[in-house]
Amino acid sequence: MPETAEPSLIVDVEFGEDVVVRAFTNLYGCRIGDRTQIGTFVEVQRGAEIGSDCKVQSHTFICDGVSIGDRAFVGHGVVFVNDKRPRATNPEGRLQGESDWMMLPTVVEDGATIGSGATILGGVTIGAEATVGAGAVVVKDVPAGATVVGNPARELG
Amino acid sequence: MPETAEPSLIVDVEFGEDVVVRAFTNLYGCRIGDRTQIGTFVEVQRGAEIGSDCKVQSHTFICDGVSIGDRAFVGHGVVFVNDKRPRATNPEGRLQGESDWMMLPTVVEDGATIGSGATILGGVTIGAEATVGAGAVVVKDVPAGATVVGNPARELG
Amino acid sequence: MPETAEPSLIVDVEFGEDVVVRAFTNLYGCRIGDRTQIGTFVEVQRGAEIGSDCKVQSHTFICDGVSIGDRAFVGHGVVFVNDKRPRATNPEGRLQGESDWMMLPTVVEDGATIGSGATILGGVTIGAEATVGAGAVVVKDVPAGATVVGNPARELG
Repeated sequence: MPETAEPSLIVDVEFGEDVVVRAFTNLYGCRIGDRTQIGTFVEVQRGAEIGSDCKVQSHTFICDGVSIGDRAFVGHGVVFVNDKRPRATNPEGRLQGESDWMMLPTVVEDGATIGSGATILGGVTIGAEATVGAGAVVVKDVPAGATVVGNPARELG
Repeated sequence: MPETAEPSLIVDVEFGEDVVVRAFTNLYGCRIGDRTQIGTFVEVQRGAEIGSDCKVQSHTFICDGVSIGDRAFVGHGVVFVNDKRPRATNPEGRLQGESDWMMLPTVVEDGATIGSGATILGGVTIGAEATVGAGAVVVKDVPAGATVVGNPARELG
Repeated sequence: MPETAEPSLIVDVEFGEDVVVRAFTNLYGCRIGDRTQIGTFVEVQRGAEIGSDCKVQSHTFICDGVSIGDRAFVGHGVVFVNDKRPRATNPEGRLQGESDWMMLPTVVEDGATIGSGATILGGVTIGAEATVGAGAVVVKDVPAGATVVGNPARELG
């Protein structure tokens, strides 16, 4: 079990060794690799996977369908998305359940950095060692090693 | 009373039937309709109103003056604003109180979707079934059924 | 000691008089001046300084190296940055420690307003009485009294 600050809600999480989890976190049904650090006010949903030696900073939301490699940096207040057209209800007017939408998988490759305040749309791949600038809104794939900034995010240089 | 996960702070809230409230929430003086779900790390201020069959996702802030209809989706990390020129203090240099600023009311109509990471300025109306893209900054009204993206948000197509 | 709502984590903080701290906050090793108010879901890191008569609203992250003057307004969901090229690990592949990166100091001068959802990159100065619009991404200095909006933030008018 990780070093965990209270209060936190941790249910059905598969932890590697020497993970550190700060207070006020909500982690459930996910996998978190060796030595990775999870900041305060972070939620990681069922089905998400985070590799080893990552830093996930405060106020960040990682949803089902997100797979993060090793040595990735996820800044503060980062939000992942996994649904192209989210709606509260289905055509019958009832709250959507699991069969009412299609999950878009997102991949963050080894060594990538996602700047604070970034929003990552569903279905994209952020390549190895790439950098997403702070506040960027990523709507398509980011090549390995590239740096993207802005809304929508575009490659620098 | 709703199904509520602890720890949460819930004071003077008018709940409909079968509301679900996740942990680490701060709800006070607001109204929340039937079957609506409120995620973790959400604050809803005094005076805000949320209809029935809505989903309000994690890390979202809903301020006084916001009125949300039925079947609306409010994504993760959404921030509403209700003050055009916020300042900490009044001209005398003292912390502002209620008489020192004018609240701008905001309306989210039935079935609208607000994408994750969006910022909604005060005084706008987001029309029925409209979609605000993830990360958008909404500075003016969004027509019913329209989709807006970007900073500032502009209508697609 | 300030008026503090529970649960909160407050460690090694130097408070002025009549500070108010809301629940679900994580404050450590920082200074907070007289009468300043700190909202829910706020983290203030070791080394940060906040003056007197400020309002720091919910969901905001203030990092080491940030110095905020008096009578400043920091909106909801504001994120400060202090590292130009954040990485999880150093060249040897181990989690970064304090000697592996250079902190960029950020200054928010007296009476400035930072709108909700804004992201403030490291190393900038936001001048006295300046206004950062909601959702702006500030990448360079903001002159005293100026108003900036957008991503990247540009001066209005």
